[in-house]
Amino acid sequence: SRFSYVKNYEIADPLLPGTFILARVDGRAFHRFSTEHEFTKPNDERALNLMNCAARGVMTEFNDIILAFGESDEFRHRSFFASTSLYNRRMSKILTALTSIFTSMYMFHWAEHFPQKALKYPPSFDGRIILYPSEQEVRDYFAWRQVDTHINNLYNTAFWALVQQGAHSTADAHAVLRGTLSGQKHELLFSRFGINYNALPARLRKGTLLVRENVTPAPSLDTASSKKKIKRTTMIVAYHCDVVGEEFWKGHSELLNP
Amino acid sequence: SRFSYVKNYEIADPLLPGTFILARVDGRAFHRFSTEHEFTKPNDERALNLMNCAARGVMTEFNDIILAFGESDEFRHRSFFASTSLYNRRMSKILTALTSIFTSMYMFHWAEHFPQKALKYPPSFDGRIILYPSEQEVRDYFAWRQVDTHINNLYNTAFWALVQQGAHSTADAHAVLRGTLSGQKHELLFSRFGINYNALPARLRKGTLLVRENVTPAPSLDTASSKKKIKRTTMIVAYHCDVVGEEFWKGHSELLNP
Amino acid sequence: SRFSYVKNYEIADPLLPGTFILARVDGRAFHRFSTEHEFTKPNDERALNLMNCAARGVMTEFNDIILAFGESDEFRHRSFFASTSLYNRRMSKILTALTSIFTSMYMFHWAEHFPQKALKYPPSFDGRIILYPSEQEVRDYFAWRQVDTHINNLYNTAFWALVQQGAHSTADAHAVLRGTLSGQKHELLFSRFGINYNALPARLRKGTLLVRENVTPAPSLDTASSKKKIKRTTMIVAYHCDVVGEEFWKGHSELLNP
Amino acid sequence: SRFSYVKNYEIADPLLPGTFILARVDGRAFHRFSTEHEFTKPNDERALNLMNCAARGVMTEFNDIILAFGESDEFRHRSFFASTSLYNRRMSKILTALTSIFTSMYMFHWAEHFPQKALKYPPSFDGRIILYPSEQEVRDYFAWRQVDTHINNLYNTAFWALVQQGAHSTADAHAVLRGTLSGQKHELLFSRFGINYNALPARLRKGTLLVRENVTPAPSLDTASSKKKIKRTTMIVAYHCDVVGEEFWKGHSELLNP
Ligand SMILES: Nc1nc2c(ncn2[C@H]2C[C@H](O)[C@@H](COP(=O)(O)OP(=O)(O)OP(=O)(O)O)O2)c(=O)[nH]1
Ligand SMILES: Nc1nc2c(ncn2[C@H]2C[C@H](O)[C@@H](COP(=O)(O)OP(=O)(O)OP(=O)(O)O)O2)c(=O)[nH]1
Ligand SMILES: Nc1nc2c(ncn2[C@H]2C[C@H](O)[C@@H](COP(=O)(O)OP(=O)(O)OP(=O)(O)O)O2)c(=O)[nH]1
Ligand SMILES: Nc1nc2c(ncn2[C@H]2C[C@H](O)[C@@H](COP(=O)(O)OP(=O)(O)OP(=O)(O)O)O2)c(=O)[nH]1
Ligand SMILES: O=P(O)(O)OP(=O)(O)OP(=O)(O)O
Ligand SMILES: O=P(O)(O)OP(=O)(O)OP(=O)(O)O
Ligand SMILES: O=P(O)(O)OP(=O)(O)OP(=O)(O)O
Ligand SMILES: O=P(O)(O)OP(=O)(O)OP(=O)(O)O
Ligand SMILES: [Mg+2]
Ligand SMILES: [Mg+2]
Ligand SMILES: [Mg+2]
Ligand SMILES: [Mg+2]
Ligand SMILES: [Mg+2]
Ligand SMILES: [Mg+2]
Ligand SMILES: [Mg+2]
Ligand SMILES: [Mg+2]
Ligand SMILES: [Mg+2]
Ligand SMILES: [Mg+2]
Ligand SMILES: [Mg+2]
Ligand SMILES: [Mg+2]
Repeated sequence: SRFSYVKNYEIADPLLPGTFILARVDGRAFHRFSTEHEFTKPNDERALNLMNCAARGVMTEFNDIILAFGESDEFRHRSFFASTSLYNRRMSKILTALTSIFTSMYMFHWAEHFPQKALKYPPSFDGRIILYPSEQEVRDYFAWRQVDTHINNLYNTAFWALVQQGAHSTADAHAVLRGTLSGQKHELLFSRFGINYNALPARLRKGTLLVRENVTPAPSLDTASSKKKIKRTTMIVAYHCDVVGEEFWKGHSELLNP
Repeated sequence: SRFSYVKNYEIADPLLPGTFILARVDGRAFHRFSTEHEFTKPNDERALNLMNCAARGVMTEFNDIILAFGESDEFRHRSFFASTSLYNRRMSKILTALTSIFTSMYMFHWAEHFPQKALKYPPSFDGRIILYPSEQEVRDYFAWRQVDTHINNLYNTAFWALVQQGAHSTADAHAVLRGTLSGQKHELLFSRFGINYNALPARLRKGTLLVRENVTPAPSLDTASSKKKIKRTTMIVAYHCDVVGEEFWKGHSELLNP
Repeated sequence: SRFSYVKNYEIADPLLPGTFILARVDGRAFHRFSTEHEFTKPNDERALNLMNCAARGVMTEFNDIILAFGESDEFRHRSFFASTSLYNRRMSKILTALTSIFTSMYMFHWAEHFPQKALKYPPSFDGRIILYPSEQEVRDYFAWRQVDTHINNLYNTAFWALVQQGAHSTADAHAVLRGTLSGQKHELLFSRFGINYNALPARLRKGTLLVRENVTPAPSLDTASSKKKIKRTTMIVAYHCDVVGEEFWKGHSELLNP
Repeated sequence: SRFSYVKNYEIADPLLPGTFILARVDGRAFHRFSTEHEFTKPNDERALNLMNCAARGVMTEFNDIILAFGESDEFRHRSFFASTSLYNRRMSKILTALTSIFTSMYMFHWAEHFPQKALKYPPSFDGRIILYPSEQEVRDYFAWRQVDTHINNLYNTAFWALVQQGAHSTADAHAVLRGTLSGQKHELLFSRFGINYNALPARLRKGTLLVRENVTPAPSLDTASSKKKIKRTTMIVAYHCDVVGEEFWKGHSELLNP
């Protein structure tokens, strides 16, 4: 029709070829959402599991995502091979599809993880895409998030111990912790509450890493089928290990040099 | 930490000031989704109502959205006053928040509209943003969509009449309709199936327009309060009227010259 | 060849359709350039004429430029009809062609304007493109530049009068002028140096506006030719008039509603 | 002033950090320019030298440019260290400054290279920027250009030999060459015109590479000064060597791993 010229105002938004595409989704106003839905503090295992479940859902839909890191209300999918041609690397397509799938997976699996608690209102997420030219920056990105997870979680653990077990007001608890170094928080947790921070589940201290790994199919005895092209399959494995050092990356060199 | 340099790779994506921001969301693979969830054909009233409900949810969250048009599995929110400063006009923020809210509203209200039918899998949506410099292009955009809705719906109505009531195969039905003009489809519907196309609900023929309208509060008798600043409230009104001609726009001049 | 994949990394950069394209070029380090080439202070007529000449050269090359405003070492070409399709609105193409032509025109015509003075080193210019959605913003853009021209020129005129005629040091002259209002500078110029600022050439106080105007060809007496399509020609006219008020724009309505 | 809001429409255009910035300039309509200024065919040594001279001028101005490749009427500066922070990596600034400097250098040095020939009109150049994430793509980019230079130059050499020495019409010459392989053109040049293509100057067959190289200052005998920080200086060296193979890059590893 004579109106269809308006379609031409859509401007293409291709992502630079050869770069690693990192997509991040983060819960919108989860401070309120976690309060209204009475998440346990500082960490709610059900909520974290639900986040992991939604992230797995996204990875199942997009095979090109090979790695994801989650903590608190957010997930970062680094996710695409540098060479992905998903949606011709159209930025908005990739970003909105991923954010929308994450959102609906979170809703879809809510009842499994919170069987006793109906959703009071629908949660939502924001998303963004960041490009990294090289492997080093991708590694540093995940390291950055994990260091941050550690700092936040140590603080939150100490804070809620003071409030819940120490009967401090929240203002008080902040005052106690202000300016303390990492070692002092460890010490405080241990001496006052008998909590050995390093013995807490790695899941809480280090966040969750979802990795797409290749599955080598068992060799077939049937000689006929051995001639067939073996279908390469993958599975998504969860880790709660350190990503700052070399070890994890050495064991997963395919993630950076696909 | 020494890793935080990676944050600098996030590139700002401001939308050009002074332009009208139009956001579109469209169901991903709703051909399959509508089949699996047995939507009635060609239009499922429950499904259309659910779409409208999700769009209303978005408009309730974002006051700056003043107009939205929906048909089939998609919604276009033109949405923002040209002068909106929502999220400082950051493209990804606006786009992902809107798409995510739409998605979760759709999920949240599913059971109300499909009480007998559980979701088999989570639906998702893609989104994009288009900028228009002037009112004329915004009007033409909505006109474009409505003309398209009409063409598609007339075709689909004739098609499914042939298949469901005329016992044609789908291939056959396509063959019958190939190359027919609009008038011929009207004629076919009337002569063979007694359907007066123009008497079908406007909702199906013209799509749904959601308009934010100002509500003038009833004047207070209390003289004291009359000095108080009257809080301006708005409500979201649904229309199924023509947007190609002048009439609608004349009656809603505030939409284009806010 | 197997290397040609690298061409795909070129990313398209179309300018939003329907917007007014404004291009600005500004002399790089003209503080130094004007000193080394002994421009007279505060304004060098030869230098300003040369700038105007370069801007005309650009407008002669690109018919779609309809308006340009120059002052000091810079020129703003607003330049393009909102509907221009020059180079398919490719940003880099338009911007670099324009900046390069401006540069080479400046060099090419140097000797005409500075016959006694050889270029000591090649001058260069930076450029940028700004998009405006509506006529109002385009008008305000030129008004903004003209107001700025006025403020700068009044200051510079007073400053150099103090230095050149008043035998102040430059530090002194700045000190004298610090915090003075516009009226006080007028007063100072008049009382101390007998200069009536408003009587200075409009070219200096208001900058130069180059306008593409239609030339109506004289009607032909030859009846045969009157049936031929009359070729529309244009010429570039210089103005030094006010662009803040209504008058100029009323007389040139074709500039904003082409 | 109340107009200054228009400044906010300038949108930032930072180049992705960590990527290699490649800038290309190419003569606009040099088909005509070379004809009007009677460049010798197929290659005019004066014209090529002038291009090299302009490219050197750009490299002298921008220290961050470490490599440039020229052929015919174009130059590609790959130019920037991936980590350059020139103009905060603002795209338009870098691109226009570079294109403008190239243009004015070309004009400035014209008379040295064409002492007998005045410029009939000012030449101009277009420019663009391309980003490459890794060293491999940068290498392949230069290889791509050099392979292209070879193909074009071999064709042009054969073509002009047929026209100038063989008295063919241009249409004829194209017809003779249509569909010929590389080896056949070598053969034709040798058998008909006694030209050993591989013996032609490498400058014509391989283009010109300008490389910024470190200059190690001679050790000072003065013991006092040996404690001073040695100022690192660089010089720009021209090569006409192969860049497709490993050798050049091995000898210049600092270009890719700065
Ligand atoms: N109690 C509890 N709260 C959690 C848990 N996971 C996340 N949260 C809350 C704590 C924070 O208030 C919030 C995440 O912080 P953000 O910086 O993302 O802030 P928020 O989502 O409120 O705002 P935003 O829209 O992202 O700017 O979610 C959990 O497992 N338990
Ligand atoms: N039966 C039925 N189908 C509907 C209704 N509304 C939408 N659909 C289906 C018809 C189309 O197959 C589909 C919408 O067309 P699209 O062009 O958006 O295609 P689809 O969503 O499959 O693919 P996409 O991911 O958008 O490229 O949704 C409805 O009310 N009833
Ligand atoms: N004496 C004299 N100087 C002039 C004339 N026109 C421009 N200039 C000088 C005065 C300023 O120092 C300079 C223009 O100011 P800008 O803000 O553009 O600074 P400049 O070009 O030095 O630096 P930039 O590279 O643009 O950041 O040019 C003139 O007619 N006479
Ligand atoms: N005779 C002669 N011509 C040359 C020489 N170097 C370049 N040229 C001419 C040959 C080509 O016609 C032209 C370069 O080809 P381009 O593809 O860049 O085309 P042109 O600059 O005409 O158009 P453009 O504005 O770049 O699209 O310049 C030379 O050394 N001698
Ligand atoms: O979301 P946060 O708290 O990590 O902080 P941010 O991403 O820098 O902020 P924003 O969501 O506004 O981009
Ligand atoms: O989604 P459609 O069918 O209206 O078509 P499109 O928007 O042009 O296609 P795409 O979703 O690929 O942008
Ligand atoms: O060039 P100026 O002085 O008008 O100032 P600017 O344009 O804001 O600065 P920049 O050239 O750095 O964009
Ligand atoms: O300039 P050419 O001939 O190398 O070709 P191009 O760069 O692909 O074309 P354009 O100048 O139009 O970008
Ligand atoms: Mg955030
Ligand atoms: Mg959050
Ligand atoms: Mg968060
Ligand atoms: Mg689509
Ligand atoms: Mg769809
Ligand atoms: Mg659709
Ligand atoms: Mg500047
Ligand atoms: Mg300047
Ligand atoms: Mg200036
Ligand atoms: Mg070109
Ligand atoms: Mg060229
Ligand atoms: Mg060329």
